[in-house]
Amino acid sequence: MLLNEMSWTEAKKYFAKNDMAIFPVGSNEQHGPHNPLGTDYLIAQALAQKAAERSGVLCLPAVPFGVSSHHKQFWGTVFISPTTFKSYVKEVCLSLRYYGVKKIVIVNGHGGNLDALKQLARELRELDVFVSVFQWWTAAAELLPDLFKPGERSHACAEETAMNLLLHPNLVKMKSAADEVLKEYIFENAGVSLPLDIADYSASGVLGKSSTASPRKAKKVFDAVVGELVRHIDALKKMRSKDLAQKSKA
Amino acid sequence: MLLNEMSWTEAKKYFAKNDMAIFPVGSNEQHGPHNPLGTDYLIAQALAQKAAERSGVLCLPAVPFGVSSHHKQFWGTVFISPTTFKSYVKEVCLSLRYYGVKKIVIVNGHGGNLDALKQLARELRELDVFVSVFQWWTAAAELLPDLFKPGERSHACAEETAMNLLLHPNLVKMKSAADEVLKEYIFENAGVSLPLDIADYSASGVLGKSSTASPRKAKKVFDAVVGELVRHIDALKKMRSKDLAQKSKA
Amino acid sequence: MLLNEMSWTEAKKYFAKNDMAIFPVGSNEQHGPHNPLGTDYLIAQALAQKAAERSGVLCLPAVPFGVSSHHKQFWGTVFISPTTFKSYVKEVCLSLRYYGVKKIVIVNGHGGNLDALKQLARELRELDVFVSVFQWWTAAAELLPDLFKPGERSHACAEETAMNLLLHPNLVKMKSAADEVLKEYIFENAGVSLPLDIADYSASGVLGKSSTASPRKAKKVFDAVVGELVRHIDALKKMRSKDLAQKSKA
Amino acid sequence: MLLNEMSWTEAKKYFAKNDMAIFPVGSNEQHGPHNPLGTDYLIAQALAQKAAERSGVLCLPAVPFGVSSHHKQFWGTVFISPTTFKSYVKEVCLSLRYYGVKKIVIVNGHGGNLDALKQLARELRELDVFVSVFQWWTAAAELLPDLFKPGERSHACAEETAMNLLLHPNLVKMKSAADEVLKEYIFENAGVSLPLDIADYSASGVLGKSSTASPRKAKKVFDAVVGELVRHIDALKKMRSKDLAQKSKA
Amino acid sequence: MLLNEMSWTEAKKYFAKNDMAIFPVGSNEQHGPHNPLGTDYLIAQALAQKAAERSGVLCLPAVPFGVSSHHKQFWGTVFISPTTFKSYVKEVCLSLRYYGVKKIVIVNGHGGNLDALKQLARELRELDVFVSVFQWWTAAAELLPDLFKPGERSHACAEETAMNLLLHPNLVKMKSAADEVLKEYIFENAGVSLPLDIADYSASGVLGKSSTASPRKAKKVFDAVVGELVRHIDALKKMRSKDLAQKSKA
Amino acid sequence: MLLNEMSWTEAKKYFAKNDMAIFPVGSNEQHGPHNPLGTDYLIAQALAQKAAERSGVLCLPAVPFGVSSHHKQFWGTVFISPTTFKSYVKEVCLSLRYYGVKKIVIVNGHGGNLDALKQLARELRELDVFVSVFQWWTAAAELLPDLFKPGERSHACAEETAMNLLLHPNLVKMKSAADEVLKEYIFENAGVSLPLDIADYSASGVLGKSSTASPRKAKKVFDAVVGELVRHIDALKKMRSKDLAQKSKA
Repeated sequence: MLLNEMSWTEAKKYFAKNDMAIFPVGSNEQHGPHNPLGTDYLIAQALAQKAAERSGVLCLPAVPFGVSSHHKQFWGTVFISPTTFKSYVKEVCLSLRYYGVKKIVIVNGHGGNLDALKQLARELRELDVFVSVFQWWTAAAELLPDLFKPGERSHACAEETAMNLLLHPNLVKMKSAADEVLKEYIFENAGVSLPLDIADYSASGVLGKSSTASPRKAKKVFDAVVGELVRHIDALKKMRSKDLAQKSKA
Repeated sequence: MLLNEMSWTEAKKYFAKNDMAIFPVGSNEQHGPHNPLGTDYLIAQALAQKAAERSGVLCLPAVPFGVSSHHKQFWGTVFISPTTFKSYVKEVCLSLRYYGVKKIVIVNGHGGNLDALKQLARELRELDVFVSVFQWWTAAAELLPDLFKPGERSHACAEETAMNLLLHPNLVKMKSAADEVLKEYIFENAGVSLPLDIADYSASGVLGKSSTASPRKAKKVFDAVVGELVRHIDALKKMRSKDLAQKSKA
Repeated sequence: MLLNEMSWTEAKKYFAKNDMAIFPVGSNEQHGPHNPLGTDYLIAQALAQKAAERSGVLCLPAVPFGVSSHHKQFWGTVFISPTTFKSYVKEVCLSLRYYGVKKIVIVNGHGGNLDALKQLARELRELDVFVSVFQWWTAAAELLPDLFKPGERSHACAEETAMNLLLHPNLVKMKSAADEVLKEYIFENAGVSLPLDIADYSASGVLGKSSTASPRKAKKVFDAVVGELVRHIDALKKMRSKDLAQKSKA
Repeated sequence: MLLNEMSWTEAKKYFAKNDMAIFPVGSNEQHGPHNPLGTDYLIAQALAQKAAERSGVLCLPAVPFGVSSHHKQFWGTVFISPTTFKSYVKEVCLSLRYYGVKKIVIVNGHGGNLDALKQLARELRELDVFVSVFQWWTAAAELLPDLFKPGERSHACAEETAMNLLLHPNLVKMKSAADEVLKEYIFENAGVSLPLDIADYSASGVLGKSSTASPRKAKKVFDAVVGELVRHIDALKKMRSKDLAQKSKA
Repeated sequence: MLLNEMSWTEAKKYFAKNDMAIFPVGSNEQHGPHNPLGTDYLIAQALAQKAAERSGVLCLPAVPFGVSSHHKQFWGTVFISPTTFKSYVKEVCLSLRYYGVKKIVIVNGHGGNLDALKQLARELRELDVFVSVFQWWTAAAELLPDLFKPGERSHACAEETAMNLLLHPNLVKMKSAADEVLKEYIFENAGVSLPLDIADYSASGVLGKSSTASPRKAKKVFDAVVGELVRHIDALKKMRSKDLAQKSKA
Repeated sequence: MLLNEMSWTEAKKYFAKNDMAIFPVGSNEQHGPHNPLGTDYLIAQALAQKAAERSGVLCLPAVPFGVSSHHKQFWGTVFISPTTFKSYVKEVCLSLRYYGVKKIVIVNGHGGNLDALKQLARELRELDVFVSVFQWWTAAAELLPDLFKPGERSHACAEETAMNLLLHPNLVKMKSAADEVLKEYIFENAGVSLPLDIADYSASGVLGKSSTASPRKAKKVFDAVVGELVRHIDALKKMRSKDLAQKSKA
């Protein structure tokens, strides 16, 4: 059920019976010296397509470029502004709304996109479209807390590298995998948020340990995460859109 | 050292020797049936002014309206769009930059403002101004983890109510204080972010227990938080602005 | 009746019976070597709150930063662009509209804001909200034409300084008060409007005589102006909003 | 010296020796039952071209549509938003700047355009282009205060009608000329600015007395106004652009 | 039937019976060393006014500045961005829509405007206004294919120069007319579109042969083109606006 | 040489020696009852990747959604506004510019994107990046004029269907292929551009004959087009970027 593979007459039949879609978004940004720049959209796409297959819900093509300016010191990163990224993704969702879609699950492969996606979801709910944003690494941390150590869960580390090894092993150069000891940055104060780039912390672009990646663990992650994503899709499918509508004044 | 109380000739003297400022921002939004709508900017202002007094760093007037559309079902909430809020706060920071300011500590009283402030801080770093965002409740949770239970730490609950009782007790009506059992919302799936409003969870606008608030505990919070804020300000004051600049390509 | 001091349940009661609000806006900008930078929003706030008290109409917190780039050569001035200022104030008004407000009196403390506010008022009338903009110095010049000489009525001069002496005397340094002989600027031609800054005319930022300020005269101004503002509020309160609506085609 | 009548090679010669231009802007909006909708841009164009002829300064084609939404209840009015109008006029000025122009006299035929033009002039001064805005009716009121009574000086009244009778008599239908007694609108309070349309005051679109118009008086106005405009152009021509630049910090 | 020459009461009578208008737009840009910068809007205006006269449809004043940055190396060209040009023209059309206009024929004198006009027409059709864009040189090439050789039909060449000779001969300096052999630009590849300026191809700004221009041929062009324009206007006049509305989903 | 498959360290090596990239963009829109919605970006991607392989120039991931509102009546079409599409593609190009790229060949699979891409290319040339836009069907019509009849060359017809049959035959349902006799639309006038949708002309979404598609002819097209694209890339590669820069004033 990939939108790009259907003809419009097939799409018409789908939309006549379904008000839901899955939409993967990612980025093209550095993931250390060993992972491909496309990591985030490739993983999002793989998860979304597998969940579409299992749930019978339509899946869109992945948005390949996202909000990545905090990675820009590392060559080849493409960095879209949050405003433009939000507009682009939102207009895709509004196109779906034109065909009657009321519920969209965005499978987001890149944390830097999240603020823009949350804002977009709020705006679409005002227009009677309910958008949920699914992030696989958050799901994995809740579902499989014992599989990786904290230092293996961050950007370009063992967990993410493992997913690449599982999905497209030819794109990973494990002998270049870096284990980074993060620079302690300047302020240790509690309650403070700083506008730091990855380059402030890491020379390799990896935010911890990546050399311990293995596709075997990734299989557990992939299965658990797809399972949870499908459960979410099924739960959302059953909701009536009026029960998802914004509440009126108290 | 309040900017609004100085004349321009006094400001000129300050800026001749200092490249730093403190800037409180908040919101005007519901905080349950017992707290004032102004809670967030009033607390931010009190913390910022106290820290200014102790650190000798200039403090600006507080921005009173913020990003609060998720509270709008509760009457009297003012909701600014993230785009407009960011522009407004950013142009204040750019004005300071014109007078040589290189470091700004934004004391943010409202979590809903954070995404916009983080984005603004990233944009300003590209213009050689380093903005950090301080949030008191995050600081308090790290500094005083045993003082309140989790259910007392959320929006309009005991911790925040206590701060109001300490700072402006006449504005709190404790006999209206609500203890809310949050509605379990529709989806329990791991890894999912939903565009929910407070009204989806809570009938009173409180997100937990507020009746246990006491000004005594607030005193500890206030002192600990101001202490940490001053430590952060002092640490930032010592930094050379070239060491805060964005890194060049790897 | 300060919005920021009410809880949402109190606000709900107010809005159930009232469709009106008072909204002070000002600026943070130079007012000569003797007056505080906050002059404009502090005076607007004082007038608005007094009028709210006397009329029983709700008053919002003051917007502290406005359209002041023509003062920017004088240190400490915060200058917001007209576009951003209009959006910020407009979104506050639209929030009030969501709760049923149909009439808003903006008490403007800074002439530089006026163009943006007039445009905003025109846009809101198209949305069935009637906004009037009240400026105290214009009102005073009509109500008390004999109290000050023309050279005492302008920016940071005796009239405005007197208001500061009345409302927050501790923020005025009368021994620094300047009496400025304005530079005659380049063009004397009739019918010409020039994009000049205050710095083109004045070395001190004062646009005339300020040393003659006295709180006694300010008391007369304050009382006359508040009286007129309350009369206007009462007159507007009595209007039916359909009689304030935009006319249809001729 | 009309830009639109020159070839680019002629324009090149002009710009090699001159850094100045005249730019008429107006509107297409109701001027009562007797005057043409084009009144404002036609008069601006006539004045600008005459002044160009006498001063040897280049004149641009007139911008025919302006900020006129306050006239929209009267059929045939074209109403551009202030934002779009400002952008359009500004980009013309920026084109001139590309060819070395440093000083522009905008001859504005419509008061509703003024706020946008003043803002544009401020923005251009930041870019080292000095823009002055000339309005003929203001100039006339200062130069010839005895020629018309106040009730004859306003929109579409005797003064403006007379200019039409002088410049394009065939477009005026004097037998339809209206003398309007303005509706007293709702609020008489001092210091108040209201977002009113012409239709709130006037049934005919005329804001006073128009039947007393005569081309003879218009001749005096035209001559006096062109004279003053030329004096202004000559004065500006003599200025060095560095003396017109924005001042630095005080 | 020129809008700018009518009073609002006359416009009201027109709009009571007609839902159509003609709107000329052009540019002020180089047309070689011999043609006036105003060529494009002057020709558009002449065609539109003649067609208005013959069809009884209302004609607006011409927009004199358009999308011409590809001509900017030639002095005196005014270059508006596509975004601003589209907004300006669109808001004129929306004003007409307010008075009931459902069909607008834009007579476009400058090819560089076309992309913006097509986009605007698409947006207006969504608002139930049908805009067609007429270009005289395209019409002429179809109607009179034998009159000029291809090298005489391009920008500022014999065909366009001839129109100037017919309409305003005093503005053409035929002895400066250039016959340009275009520089072969860098890429000859099929299927490639390049962001070139006129200055990449031509030293004079002419894109071929202009010395062969004669007003006699122009008369044939003018008559043929006006005839076709009137036929189009008449055909559009007869359409019911519901038959011009956007189709619903397939 | 796919950007998304490289790591940042590999990208760094590429950018150290190369200042060029290939960037495919397309759309997701109806292509008749037999072709996949993704046709345009899938073909663009295939051509771009093949050309990258042969030329050694880096290729980006394809942008999958474009400017397609004229197809929206046919289900499943995603329609991005020209403004948002331009911003999204432009910010990708600006990211490349940050890494030293001076020349970009956009391989555009969808004609509806062209206006936005041409505008973007003009804006980037002002920033010293030279963007050319390659469209395969235009190239094919010039290179292989005898292979298809005119009625087979348009949207979703034999030529385009053949490309799908060659590249991803499993996504084409030839038994649903439509041969459409286009509705003659309302106006036949010369020189007129109308804001029509595909649905105004065609019931199937096909704009001519598609049943005659064969992969054999597509092979000739694909080879010829890739050959021409590679020739263009090679020619551009040899250019010095200063020779591609915008010309200065004449």
